[in-house]
Amino acid sequence: MEWVNRIRLEVPFHDVDSLEVVWHGHYFKYFEQARTALMRKLDYDTPQMKDSGYAWPVVETNCRYRHALVLGQVFEVKAKIVGFESRLEIEYRLEDLEGRLLAQGFTAQAAVEQATNQLCLATPEVFRRQLGVL
Amino acid sequence: MEWVNRIRLEVPFHDVDSLEVVWHGHYFKYFEQARTALMRKLDYDTPQMKDSGYAWPVVETNCRYRHALVLGQVFEVKAKIVGFESRLEIEYRLEDLEGRLLAQGFTAQAAVEQATNQLCLATPEVFRRQLGVL
Amino acid sequence: MEWVNRIRLEVPFHDVDSLEVVWHGHYFKYFEQARTALMRKLDYDTPQMKDSGYAWPVVETNCRYRHALVLGQVFEVKAKIVGFESRLEIEYRLEDLEGRLLAQGFTAQAAVEQATNQLCLATPEVFRRQLGVL
Amino acid sequence: MEWVNRIRLEVPFHDVDSLEVVWHGHYFKYFEQARTALMRKLDYDTPQMKDSGYAWPVVETNCRYRHALVLGQVFEVKAKIVGFESRLEIEYRLEDLEGRLLAQGFTAQAAVEQATNQLCLATPEVFRRQLGVL
Repeated sequence: MEWVNRIRLEVPFHDVDSLEVVWHGHYFKYFEQARTALMRKLDYDTPQMKDSGYAWPVVETNCRYRHALVLGQVFEVKAKIVGFESRLEIEYRLEDLEGRLLAQGFTAQAAVEQATNQLCLATPEVFRRQLGVL
Repeated sequence: MEWVNRIRLEVPFHDVDSLEVVWHGHYFKYFEQARTALMRKLDYDTPQMKDSGYAWPVVETNCRYRHALVLGQVFEVKAKIVGFESRLEIEYRLEDLEGRLLAQGFTAQAAVEQATNQLCLATPEVFRRQLGVL
Repeated sequence: MEWVNRIRLEVPFHDVDSLEVVWHGHYFKYFEQARTALMRKLDYDTPQMKDSGYAWPVVETNCRYRHALVLGQVFEVKAKIVGFESRLEIEYRLEDLEGRLLAQGFTAQAAVEQATNQLCLATPEVFRRQLGVL
Repeated sequence: MEWVNRIRLEVPFHDVDSLEVVWHGHYFKYFEQARTALMRKLDYDTPQMKDSGYAWPVVETNCRYRHALVLGQVFEVKAKIVGFESRLEIEYRLEDLEGRLLAQGFTAQAAVEQATNQLCLATPEVFRRQLGVL
């Protein structure tokens, strides 16, 4: 089972700001689309999370912007799981089609048991099973 | 009981596009903020709608744009209920501080009974009571 | 030369509101993506507009929502030019993969000559040429 | 001259996701509104930056989310300049009205000379003057 995935996206007009580059907050949408595609491969995206009795709110994010994205630019986002013991940690590389690094990001999600609204200190068994580490 | 309300807003950087004006789709956020303030005055905003057993999805919108909004511009949005018999219909006037009309909008919302997921052909009693027409 | 085009999109998590459907204002992003793809076929999208000396701000929009879009739903948007004499008018049909109509939209754009900042009462020659009607 | 400022905001419907909390990417809009208010106090916001011949793109962001923001919640964002030698670094504290910390954020911006498109290794004189450190 692979813990990495890559998607291709294109910059739409409504994401570009008055400096003619993608507004910095929109990168988290691109990361989310990459994360969704990765989690589907693991059969543990939002619907499966909900069915399993857990929500996975994002508890930490960061991004370093190297080269600005411009209108109509086609780019790729690679998402890779880098931690799962206590939190689900994913790293993102946003690259142009020549493989040049444009931005690097990170998200951490914590599992919250929906029945009790309790934060889980360890990753729930159901997700470890999807990862193939149980 | 008044069926009209006015709020004051300011254009943030992240709403401005590469033509240096507010991107047209963001106006519906401004209308929503004006609608929220109006519905609170009637004590029938999203939480009260939910408690009353109805959801009110937007089923129609329109907007005519007269003069573009620019970065940092302060403006007002007036929301006014113009229909409630079968749908909740609201008109919006977006004006600058001299009262010049910048945009006009409209939203229609239909009541959906949450228990049955049925569309209501007439406005539910609970909302007519809030309007003072029952 | 065809004046119609169709694209396929998918509902991302960040477009879904607390009623578990796509928030109504986001549809204008989907329409824009369909419009971009159509205008590229005509070789007259944002960069070509700019090069030709005109901006084309959106001056009118509307949307009627028939069936809500939900998380992860794949759908298509058809964009079709329905007027070009005085304004660029485009109709949109948002359909599910069985061809069921989910929403209908409309945008009108007016040409503004950038050198003079004057609104054009007739569609500029450059765009009529791209349409093949000159 | 103070390098700190505080604004009050309220969670609008369109920022709340299907988990009934503010979607994590929207926090960067709130930080931006706090940053705008702070930079205006220093008379060095977007228009003044442009007039001074510099753009200040965001080159790094992060956020740690402690307690979720919910629909209609009123909250405050405190922005504080914590670095200006090589980059403009700002820290954000997002608090509820009892002063409870809800989220902490950070942005770094680099100055880019618009005439040459060159990244500045030291903060331009014009901004140091606004800060009162020249």
